[in-house]
Amino acid sequence: MPDNLSDARYEVALANRMLANEGVLDAFGHVSVRHPADPSRYLLSRSRSPGLIEPDDVLQFTLDSEPVAPPSVQLYAERVIHGCIYQARPDVTAVCHHHAPAVMPFCIAGVPIVPVFHLGAAGGETLPFWNQRDEFGDTNLLVVKPEEGRSLARALGSHGAVLMNHHGATVVGRDLRELVSRSIFMCQNADYQLRAHLLGKVATLTAGETKLAGALNAMPNVTNRTWEYWTLRLARTGGLPPRATGSKARPQAASEARTNSPRTPARGQGVHKNRRRRK
Amino acid sequence: MPDNLSDARYEVALANRMLANEGVLDAFGHVSVRHPADPSRYLLSRSRSPGLIEPDDVLQFTLDSEPVAPPSVQLYAERVIHGCIYQARPDVTAVCHHHAPAVMPFCIAGVPIVPVFHLGAAGGETLPFWNQRDEFGDTNLLVVKPEEGRSLARALGSHGAVLMNHHGATVVGRDLRELVSRSIFMCQNADYQLRAHLLGKVATLTAGETKLAGALNAMPNVTNRTWEYWTLRLARTGGLPPRATGSKARPQAASEARTNSPRTPARGQGVHKNRRRRK
Amino acid sequence: MPDNLSDARYEVALANRMLANEGVLDAFGHVSVRHPADPSRYLLSRSRSPGLIEPDDVLQFTLDSEPVAPPSVQLYAERVIHGCIYQARPDVTAVCHHHAPAVMPFCIAGVPIVPVFHLGAAGGETLPFWNQRDEFGDTNLLVVKPEEGRSLARALGSHGAVLMNHHGATVVGRDLRELVSRSIFMCQNADYQLRAHLLGKVATLTAGETKLAGALNAMPNVTNRTWEYWTLRLARTGGLPPRATGSKARPQAASEARTNSPRTPARGQGVHKNRRRRK
Amino acid sequence: MPDNLSDARYEVALANRMLANEGVLDAFGHVSVRHPADPSRYLLSRSRSPGLIEPDDVLQFTLDSEPVAPPSVQLYAERVIHGCIYQARPDVTAVCHHHAPAVMPFCIAGVPIVPVFHLGAAGGETLPFWNQRDEFGDTNLLVVKPEEGRSLARALGSHGAVLMNHHGATVVGRDLRELVSRSIFMCQNADYQLRAHLLGKVATLTAGETKLAGALNAMPNVTNRTWEYWTLRLARTGGLPPRATGSKARPQAASEARTNSPRTPARGQGVHKNRRRRK
Repeated sequence: MPDNLSDARYEVALANRMLANEGVLDAFGHVSVRHPADPSRYLLSRSRSPGLIEPDDVLQFTLDSEPVAPPSVQLYAERVIHGCIYQARPDVTAVCHHHAPAVMPFCIAGVPIVPVFHLGAAGGETLPFWNQRDEFGDTNLLVVKPEEGRSLARALGSHGAVLMNHHGATVVGRDLRELVSRSIFMCQNADYQLRAHLLGKVATLTAGETKLAGALNAMPNVTNRTWEYWTLRLARTGGLPPRATGSKARPQAASEARTNSPRTPARGQGVHKNRRRRK
Repeated sequence: MPDNLSDARYEVALANRMLANEGVLDAFGHVSVRHPADPSRYLLSRSRSPGLIEPDDVLQFTLDSEPVAPPSVQLYAERVIHGCIYQARPDVTAVCHHHAPAVMPFCIAGVPIVPVFHLGAAGGETLPFWNQRDEFGDTNLLVVKPEEGRSLARALGSHGAVLMNHHGATVVGRDLRELVSRSIFMCQNADYQLRAHLLGKVATLTAGETKLAGALNAMPNVTNRTWEYWTLRLARTGGLPPRATGSKARPQAASEARTNSPRTPARGQGVHKNRRRRK
Repeated sequence: MPDNLSDARYEVALANRMLANEGVLDAFGHVSVRHPADPSRYLLSRSRSPGLIEPDDVLQFTLDSEPVAPPSVQLYAERVIHGCIYQARPDVTAVCHHHAPAVMPFCIAGVPIVPVFHLGAAGGETLPFWNQRDEFGDTNLLVVKPEEGRSLARALGSHGAVLMNHHGATVVGRDLRELVSRSIFMCQNADYQLRAHLLGKVATLTAGETKLAGALNAMPNVTNRTWEYWTLRLARTGGLPPRATGSKARPQAASEARTNSPRTPARGQGVHKNRRRRK
Repeated sequence: MPDNLSDARYEVALANRMLANEGVLDAFGHVSVRHPADPSRYLLSRSRSPGLIEPDDVLQFTLDSEPVAPPSVQLYAERVIHGCIYQARPDVTAVCHHHAPAVMPFCIAGVPIVPVFHLGAAGGETLPFWNQRDEFGDTNLLVVKPEEGRSLARALGSHGAVLMNHHGATVVGRDLRELVSRSIFMCQNADYQLRAHLLGKVATLTAGETKLAGALNAMPNVTNRTWEYWTLRLARTGGLPPRATGSKARPQAASEARTNSPRTPARGQGVHKNRRRRK
C-alpha cells in the first residue's frame, strides 16, 4: 500500500511539526506511528529537530528499533522508547516523547499531574512516574538500552502517558490524532494545575467525570476540529512539511494550507479520506 | 434586512477571530449574536475553531438552539449555552463561551475573580460560579442538554459572566463590542489578580469604583479604540475573515485592514455605520 | 522651526509604537513630549491606540491640556496627566502613562517596586504610590480633572515614575530616549522582582548602586544602543510610523528600517542629528 | 588563514543573533570567540545589540581587551569580561555575557541554580556567585576595570558559568556550539527550577547524573541538532546575518536558510567543514 505509507510518512512529519509549533516539542522529542500495513514495524524520523522533519526523513524500524534498511543518516538515540511500547501495547499506534516546559516542573518536583479540566482528562485519572535512577542508577538519563525501554513501557502500563523524572514525558495514542490532542491538552492541564496550586487549591475531576470527559478526545467532533486548527496554525507560519520526493499522494494538510474555505473539494475529500484511514 | 444580516454574520466571524487572536479562544469556544432583525433567533458558526470562522459558516438558530435551515455541516454541541441565555436575558445580544488560560486556574481552584483594576471592572463586582456536578452529577462537562443550559443561565442571573468549574467561562454583552471588551479585560483582570496574590495581597476596587469604572466599557471612547486596536492586530496577522459569498456589504474591518489612515472615508463611514447599528 | 516640530511629531508616534511593541502600552496608554520650541506646549496624539499612532495624529496642547487648534477628532480623556506634570516639572520633556502587565500586580497589591538589577535602577530608589481614592473617593479611576492631574503630579514629586493603585503607572524623562528606556526597564525590574519574591528573597541594590547604575540610563552608549534595538525590532514587524503628510524631514528610524548596515550615511546622519537635538 | 577568520566572524554574528532569537540576549549581552589562529586574541563585536550584529562589526582584541586596530566605532564597556576569562582559562574558546530573564530572579534572590533535568546539567553541579559589591563596594555594576574582570574570572574558576548578583551571568564553552547550548539550557533549567520550587520541591540530579548528562552537551548528535534547530528558527525570522563585505566564504547557515533539505551538498559540506573546524 504505497499510498497509505506515503500518507503515513507525511503525517509523521506533520504531527512532529504541529507539536513543535504548539510548544510540546523543541530541539528534541519525537513522534512515531506504527506502520499502517505491518504492525511489526514503526515509522520514525532520522535524528532531527521535530519542527524540521520532512516525509523523506521518516524511516522504517522493527519493533527491536533496528532500521529496516541500512541507514545513511544519524538515528535518534532514544528510539527504543517507541519500539518497546509498540511491543508492550498492541492497542497503541502512535507514540510521542517530549520535554515540554509545561510538564518539566512536575517531573522535577515529583508532583503528579491530575485531571483539572474536561480536556485535561485526556491523560486519564493518574499518570505514573518512571525514575530511570531506581532501576539503572546514575545514567545520562537518555533511554537507549532495550532494558531501559522495557522498564519505561512497564511503568507506562495501560496508561495514556508516563512522566519521566528529571527528563520529560512519553505519551501514547490509539491513533495519531488522539496522540496529538492528548499531548497538547496534557500540557495545558499541567499549566492550569500549577497556577491553580498557586491560587491555593487544586480541585480535580471525579473519576466519573474523568472517564466521560476523557472520551471527548475520541469524538470526531473534537479531533477533526483540533486537527484542522493545529494544521492551519502551522500552515500560517509557513511550516507545513514539503511533499515527499516523487509522492503522488495529495496531502490533505497542504490543501488546507492553500485554502481557507470549508467548501473546496480538496479539503472535503481530505477529511473523508482521513476519517476512513482512521477506522 | 439582508445588509444588516450579512454585516452581523461578518462581525460574528470577526469577533471570533479577534478573541482567538487575543488568546481568549483557541481550538474551542464560540461567539454568537442575537439576530439583528429577529430577537427570537441567534447567529452562531458551524462547529469550527474560532480563528478559522468565515461569514459563510455563520448559521441561524432558534432560541431552542435548533438550526433554522436543515444543516449540511456539523454543529457545536454546546449551542444551548447561547440559546438558553438569549431566552433568559432579553437585554443580552451577544454571548461568548471560552476556556481562556487566564480564567482556568480560578475555575479549578474555585477562587472568585474580583475587580482589581479599572478595566477589569467590566465583569462587575462578583462573578458567580456554576458547577455542572452539583445538579447533574458526573458528566463530560459539556453543556449540551436544554436543562443544563437553563441551569447555567440561572447561575449567570443578571451578571456579566459566569465561571464554570473545571470548564471555563461564559460572558454576555449588550452588544458585540461590549462582549469582546469584557471577555478580554476579564482575562487581564484574572491574570493580574493571580500575580497580585503571589505578591501577597489582592486589594479590590470598591463597589462604587466598580460601578463607575465598569461603565467605561460602554463609552464609545473606549469601545471604538479597543475595536480598532484588536481589528488592526488581527489584520496584521492576515487573519481578517474573507467576505461572505456574494456579499455586497463593505466590511468596515476590511477597510481598516487596507489602510492605516484615520482620514479615509472608508473607515470614517464604517465607524459611523457601526455606531448607528449599535443603537 | 518646522523641521524640529515634524521630527518631534514623528518621534512621538515612533515612541508610542516602540512601547506598544515592547508590551508597555496596549490598547491604552500614551506618550507625550514637550514642544521642542515652546516649553508652554506639549505634543500628544488624538485618542488612538499607541501602536497605530501616526505623525499626523499628533496635536499641540497648552499646559492646561487644551488643544491649541480646535480639534476635529476625539482627544484622550486623561491628557491632564501630561499637562499637570509639565507644569510641575520644568526638567521633564517626556511623559508616558501606561497599564503595563508587569506593573499591575504591584499597583493592585500595593507592594513597592524596588531596584533589583542595574538597568532597573532607572526608576530611582523608591517609587511613590498615588491612590486616587484617597483624595477623590470613588471614581472610574480615570485622571480627567485638573485637580486630579495636579494631585498625581504632587505624588510624583521629583521621582522618575509614580505607581497608580488599581490603574497603572506614569513615567517621566528628561528626554524621550530616557523615558522609553526607563519605562521598559521599570517593567523588566518589576517582572524580575516578582519572580525573585517567589524564590523567597528580594535583595535590592544599595542606595549608592542605584544612584550609579541609574546614571547608565543617560549614557549615549546605552540609550543609542537601546533606541537602535527597539526601533529595529519595531521595523521588523512592519510597524514603523508612516511619514507625516508633506513632511520633508527624513526620519532616522525609517532609514534604519531600510538598511541594516551601520555605515550608510542615512543612519549616521540620523544618529548625529538626534544627538544634537537631545542637548 | 583569512577564510577561517571570516568564518569565525560570521559565526560570532550568528551566535549573537541565535541567542537573541532564543531570549538569552536582548538589547545587551555579547558573545565572543578566541581567534581561531591566534590564542592571544579574541573576536567581539563593536558596541551593538546582539540581534543586529554583522560579520563586519566583529573586531579583534588582545587579551588585555585592547582593540588590535584603532577603532572608528564605539566599543562594549564590559569587554574585560571576555579578555580576563581568556587569560585565566586556556581551555575556553567562547564566552557569553547576558542578562537573561530566566536567570535574573536567581541573581536577585541569591538562590543557586542547580541541575534539575538532563540538558540542564550542561552548567555543571553548582554555579558560583560573584557579587561585585563584595570587593569593589558601590559601583554601577558594569564590569569595566581589569581588576573587576580578573575578580570575575577568579569566581568563575573552572566552572561552566558564574552568576553575577543583580546583574546577570557569564557562560563559557570549549567551542561556540557548546557555549550556545549551555547558555540556552541553563536558562531552561532556571525556568523549570523556579516552577518546580512553586510546586513545593526542587529535586536535583545526582552528582553522577550531572556528570554523565553534562557530557551530552558535547555529543555531535546533540550539538549538531540544536545548532541546525536554532539556525533554522533564526532563518525563519529573516534574522540571519548578512555576508561579510567581500567575503568569499560560503556561510553554512545561509545555505541552511535557503534550503530545508538535508540532502543538498551545501549543508552537508557545511556540517563537515564545521566539524573539522571544531577539532
